[in-house]
Amino acid sequence: MTRSIKIVKIGGNVINNPSKLKEFLKAFAALEGPKILVHGGGREATTLASALGIETTMIEGRRVTDASTLDVVTMVYAGLINKRIVAQLQALGCDSIGLCGADASIIRATRRPANPIAYGFVGDICDDGVDESEIANMLRNELVPVFCAITHDGEGQLLNCNADSVASAVACASSRIMPVNLIYCFERKGVLADETDDSSVISSITGSSFKDLKETEIVSGGMIPKIENALSAVKKGVKSVTIKAAEDLLNPMAGTTITL
Amino acid sequence: MTRSIKIVKIGGNVINNPSKLKEFLKAFAALEGPKILVHGGGREATTLASALGIETTMIEGRRVTDASTLDVVTMVYAGLINKRIVAQLQALGCDSIGLCGADASIIRATRRPANPIAYGFVGDICDDGVDESEIANMLRNELVPVFCAITHDGEGQLLNCNADSVASAVACASSRIMPVNLIYCFERKGVLADETDDSSVISSITGSSFKDLKETEIVSGGMIPKIENALSAVKKGVKSVTIKAAEDLLNPMAGTTITL
Repeated sequence: MTRSIKIVKIGGNVINNPSKLKEFLKAFAALEGPKILVHGGGREATTLASALGIETTMIEGRRVTDASTLDVVTMVYAGLINKRIVAQLQALGCDSIGLCGADASIIRATRRPANPIAYGFVGDICDDGVDESEIANMLRNELVPVFCAITHDGEGQLLNCNADSVASAVACASSRIMPVNLIYCFERKGVLADETDDSSVISSITGSSFKDLKETEIVSGGMIPKIENALSAVKKGVKSVTIKAAEDLLNPMAGTTITL
Repeated sequence: MTRSIKIVKIGGNVINNPSKLKEFLKAFAALEGPKILVHGGGREATTLASALGIETTMIEGRRVTDASTLDVVTMVYAGLINKRIVAQLQALGCDSIGLCGADASIIRATRRPANPIAYGFVGDICDDGVDESEIANMLRNELVPVFCAITHDGEGQLLNCNADSVASAVACASSRIMPVNLIYCFERKGVLADETDDSSVISSITGSSFKDLKETEIVSGGMIPKIENALSAVKKGVKSVTIKAAEDLLNPMAGTTITL
C-alpha cells in the first residue's frame, strides 16, 4: 500500500456528543500512518454566546462573527474543544498538537468583503494560504496536527473560517508532500441513492458519474455542494475524498469515495 | 556572545492592558536568537467566569479550579489570550506557535492532592515533566513557542498550572538543549533595596548575597519566594534568572539578575 496522509474532518454531530467523540477519537488514534484531524465547532459556541447575552446570527449556515462572537469562537474552538481533543488523544497514545491557522502561520485567510453580506470576522483561506512545509515538519516528528477552524490574516487579526474549507485546503496543500486521503465524517453512511435508506450508499463517485447522478436527481440539495467541493479537492491533487459516518472511520469499504 | 535561549514570562499586568501588551510583543519580537514566551492569565478569566455566574475562589493566590472553572481558564488562556498573542506576533514577523502542555505532550503535570486544600483541577508539573526534545525541534525550525499555563496529566485530563512554574520548568528542561536566560516580567523595575524607590534596583543577587539581603530585611514579603524560585531554577541549570519590568525587556542592564 502506498504511504498516504489521512486527513479527517469531524463536525458538530460528533463534537456535541461526548461518548460519540470518545469513540471517534479511539478510532482516529488507531488509524495507521501520518494523519491530521480537523474539527468543527458544535453547539458549545452558541451556548456560550447565549450565556453571555451575545446574539447568534447564522446566514446560509455561516455564523455572523462580530468582535464578541470572534472571542467566543476563539475560546470554544481553539481553546476548549481543541485542547480537550488533544488531551484525550494523548491519553490514547496519539501524540497530537492542537493548532489554529495562526500557529506557525500554517493557514492564512483574508477577511470576507462586507458586500453582499457583512459576515464580520469571517475569513476565506487564501490561494496558497496553507504552508505545507510546517505540516511536513510536524508529520516528520510523528506529531498529529489537530486543527480548529480559526485562522489569521497575517496582520494580527484572527478570523473564523469554515472547518470543511480548512480540511480541504490542508488536504490540497498536503498533497504536495504525499498522497492524501481526505475523509469527511458525516451524519449519514455516505451519499445515498435513496435518502431514506442507509444501506443505499453509492460507494464511488467520479466527475462523470456525478453528472449523471445530478441529471437523474439521485443526488440533490445539500449533497450537491459537498460533492462539488470534494471534486474540486481531487482536481487540486487530493487522491480521494471519502464521505462516511464517524463510526465507520476504520472500515475502508464504508462511505462514498470521490475520485477524479 | 554565547548562544542562549531566552524564556520570557509575562503576567496579568501586561495581558490586562492591550496597549502595554502590544508594546511588549513588539519588544519580544525584536529579541534576537531562540526564544520562548510563557503567559499568565489576567483578569479575563475572572470576568468570563463572573459573566457565566461561576464564582471565583482564590486561595493563597491560586484559583480554585472546579470543572466549570477549568473550562473557563482553558477557553481564556489556551484559546483567547494564547491565539491573540500568536496572531499579533505573526504580524510582527515572529513565527510563533501557541501551545498548552497537552500539545505534543510537552508539559505533564499531576493533579494536586485535595488535602490540605481542594484546589480542584490544579496541576503541579511532574519532575522531568517537560519534554525538551519537542521544544528543541520547534526552535530548530525557527518557531517561537508561546505557552499558556494549561497542562495535562497524560490520562486525558487538562489541568490548570501556575505560569511562573511553567516558565521555570520549561527553562530548567531547555537548559539541557542550550544555556537559558529566564526573564520574569514584573510590575516593578526589579528587586528594590527601597520598596518606595524604583531607582534602587539591586542589579545582581546570588545564593550568598540573598542570605544577607534576608537577614538585613532588605528583601522581605512576596519577594522572598520569587527569589527562592529563581535560585532553585539556577541550581537546576538555568544560567540566569532576571526579574525586570516588561518595558525594559530589551535593556540588558535593567532589572535584577539572579545567578548561582
